[in-house]
Amino acid sequence: MPKIVDHDARRAELVEASWQVIAAEGLEGLTMRKVAEAAHCTTGRITHYFADREALVLAALRAVNGAAGDRTDALLSRDLPAQDKLILCLEEGLPLDKTRQLEWKVWIAFWAAAASNPDLAKENDARHTGWIKALAPLIKAVAPKTDAEHEARILMGVLDGLGLIAAINPTASNKTNAKQAVHTHVANLMTSNS
Amino acid sequence: MPKIVDHDARRAELVEASWQVIAAEGLEGLTMRKVAEAAHCTTGRITHYFADREALVLAALRAVNGAAGDRTDALLSRDLPAQDKLILCLEEGLPLDKTRQLEWKVWIAFWAAAASNPDLAKENDARHTGWIKALAPLIKAVAPKTDAEHEARILMGVLDGLGLIAAINPTASNKTNAKQAVHTHVANLMTSNS
Repeated sequence: MPKIVDHDARRAELVEASWQVIAAEGLEGLTMRKVAEAAHCTTGRITHYFADREALVLAALRAVNGAAGDRTDALLSRDLPAQDKLILCLEEGLPLDKTRQLEWKVWIAFWAAAASNPDLAKENDARHTGWIKALAPLIKAVAPKTDAEHEARILMGVLDGLGLIAAINPTASNKTNAKQAVHTHVANLMTSNS
Repeated sequence: MPKIVDHDARRAELVEASWQVIAAEGLEGLTMRKVAEAAHCTTGRITHYFADREALVLAALRAVNGAAGDRTDALLSRDLPAQDKLILCLEEGLPLDKTRQLEWKVWIAFWAAAASNPDLAKENDARHTGWIKALAPLIKAVAPKTDAEHEARILMGVLDGLGLIAAINPTASNKTNAKQAVHTHVANLMTSNS
């Protein structure tokens, strides 16, 4: 019998190996050879799944966005008050544990590359449009009198800005400041709306 | 007569050359040789002013922070209502023209490096503490009932988060969204305080 290969699982393994390389060495350290080493396979296997380095970079970023998006979707489908969902979604966006710190390192490396690559820059805009679409209905639910799209943009900025500080230096103080700022901001949004 | 050398001016020239290299190729593209090429001098002159590449990177970042800080200080010393000063300071922090887009590219490259370098990470925290100190008194002046330090942290997050999006893809829409979000946010702060 021929060996049955789960191509999706193999592809996912390679993407995960590329996260590890990016987190350790930055996006500029990402080479097919290093990913092969991290995944304990040949570079031939990598090129079987990814045409070139650029394809691997985009796959790595999309997988990070996908993983974070799946967790957010799971939160949104829970039977909870909108306020709790909003807070949980925002916390999910901050680098408060090892998994999210790794994802944040991929994003930071990606931002540095996107600053001189128009395709990656568009991918970045798409990610942020997605965030605004996810946050706006929750804001509308907890603070109906506010301009939900504006407040979603502000919250997205706060997440990226304060998340960045905490991801670069994940001290207890930077993490607490980011989390506390988000909590206070949401509480203020709800108060100002009453 | 011996030639008189303005060491500060020479140092500044080398730092400026390093900005150009970082903006074009990212921080990982910054080598002593490339800075020498950009400054039309020998690598020997570079090493005369900067012990190693790390020293040059830190000098480049501090110079960018310094230039942005000088412009902010100039705004703060103007005889203007606090609200105007606050708005001008915030706009100064966004990548709305070529100069600030170049500075932002240096910051983005720096963030990517700081994510795996504790010294640079501390430098990043210092920069943000400075921003909060500059913004808090202005917020206190325009919205005295708010928690000025909290609101300064939120605004700093918004600046970094929305500035990042606009710096990576400086489309008219990304720039307008960032600027408009900051204006609306400040207007809301003042209203919610009344």
